[in-house]
Amino acid sequence: MPTIYLLPSTMSDTAPQQVLPAGNIDIARRLKFFIVENLRTARRFLKACDRDINIDELTFFELNRHTSPEEVAGMLNPAAEGHDIGIISEAGCPAIADPGADVVAIAQRKGYDVRPLVGPSSIILSLMASGFNGQSFAFLGYLPIDASQRTAAMHAMERRIKSESQTQIFIETPYRNNKLIAELARALPGQMMLCVASDITGSNEKIITRPLSWWAKATYNYDKTPTIFLLYR
Amino acid sequence: MPTIYLLPSTMSDTAPQQVLPAGNIDIARRLKFFIVENLRTARRFLKACDRDINIDELTFFELNRHTSPEEVAGMLNPAAEGHDIGIISEAGCPAIADPGADVVAIAQRKGYDVRPLVGPSSIILSLMASGFNGQSFAFLGYLPIDASQRTAAMHAMERRIKSESQTQIFIETPYRNNKLIAELARALPGQMMLCVASDITGSNEKIITRPLSWWAKATYNYDKTPTIFLLYR
Repeated sequence: MPTIYLLPSTMSDTAPQQVLPAGNIDIARRLKFFIVENLRTARRFLKACDRDINIDELTFFELNRHTSPEEVAGMLNPAAEGHDIGIISEAGCPAIADPGADVVAIAQRKGYDVRPLVGPSSIILSLMASGFNGQSFAFLGYLPIDASQRTAAMHAMERRIKSESQTQIFIETPYRNNKLIAELARALPGQMMLCVASDITGSNEKIITRPLSWWAKATYNYDKTPTIFLLYR
Repeated sequence: MPTIYLLPSTMSDTAPQQVLPAGNIDIARRLKFFIVENLRTARRFLKACDRDINIDELTFFELNRHTSPEEVAGMLNPAAEGHDIGIISEAGCPAIADPGADVVAIAQRKGYDVRPLVGPSSIILSLMASGFNGQSFAFLGYLPIDASQRTAAMHAMERRIKSESQTQIFIETPYRNNKLIAELARALPGQMMLCVASDITGSNEKIITRPLSWWAKATYNYDKTPTIFLLYR
């Protein structure tokens, strides 16, 4: 029974050993087939895992938003021939917010063994460090771009927090991070708490939880940094 | 500025090196103060990280549901004196579904540096391996015990999946796992997909995604195993 390994990669500029268990690196070294979100970063990641790895011996399939469903299914052909396959995403854990989930769904349908390996997830790391309720939380991805839908989404998050005590987690394109914080501070009550977690695992990691009233007056610049946002009461 | 390290521990019977980055173990070794969910398992975990660790030199505060708020705040006193502190939960990542979140909230209010370290999270690992939508998901903790509230909760999950394409993730007390699967198969449409993920990271890890109609006819026994459930379409 072939195994599909879900191989997290690093986030930010960290050495693999800082954010990945040694066991992952052993597994990555012996795989010959990889499905990856980005060829260049995947090769660089494998080289960082093992300087002596022979990249030319390996087979890569690139899987992104433009890949057709037929191509996606075809990427699992090595498994049909009994080979293990590794799935690597651009940063962090694969098959969460990237196209890898479709491959995994097919692998599950075909009854292959799917093994998720431990690695950095900004969703979980930021939730841990926020001080917010981890017994009920939702990850929403991006808020709507349209201004009125966006405000409606912010109020919907406020309602879920009030009625279900559910921490709300969301992201933004980095160059809009500062604008998002200002919008939240305007749209929502000042006593609500916002955790802004940036450069998670990196050398400039900063995870701070403060009331929106504090963010309304604070000076900050998150506009070039991968950041994740958490909202609670 | 003292740092509060959030130290994940192992889940199941795995060696730390399989699920924890080497960097965590280095950090755990040099800390002198720990806030832990369970004294016994925390000591055992630290010994597994470093056989030569001198447990008697270390100071432990036990934090669980019975700890009063005043005691909780007092646990951060070493930080006020400039010492780093490690928070270790019973299994997996601390401050997610355990009392550690309260300590972290206080640490954030006091402006301490809070550093979450990478480790196994059954929520993220199961989501990766499920094949379900990771761009929008909610972790709900336990479903209600009361029968009619429970059925209502199941239908509420069904609605969120339909209206928001939001994967629903929940847990159950292990001895009720089998019963839960049967209840889901009865209450919800047979074409909905259920992923049952058990013994994650352990030697009996099993993560399978199938339609509820399949679960309705399948033979299984999850009743003694830590398991997490994911529902999608």
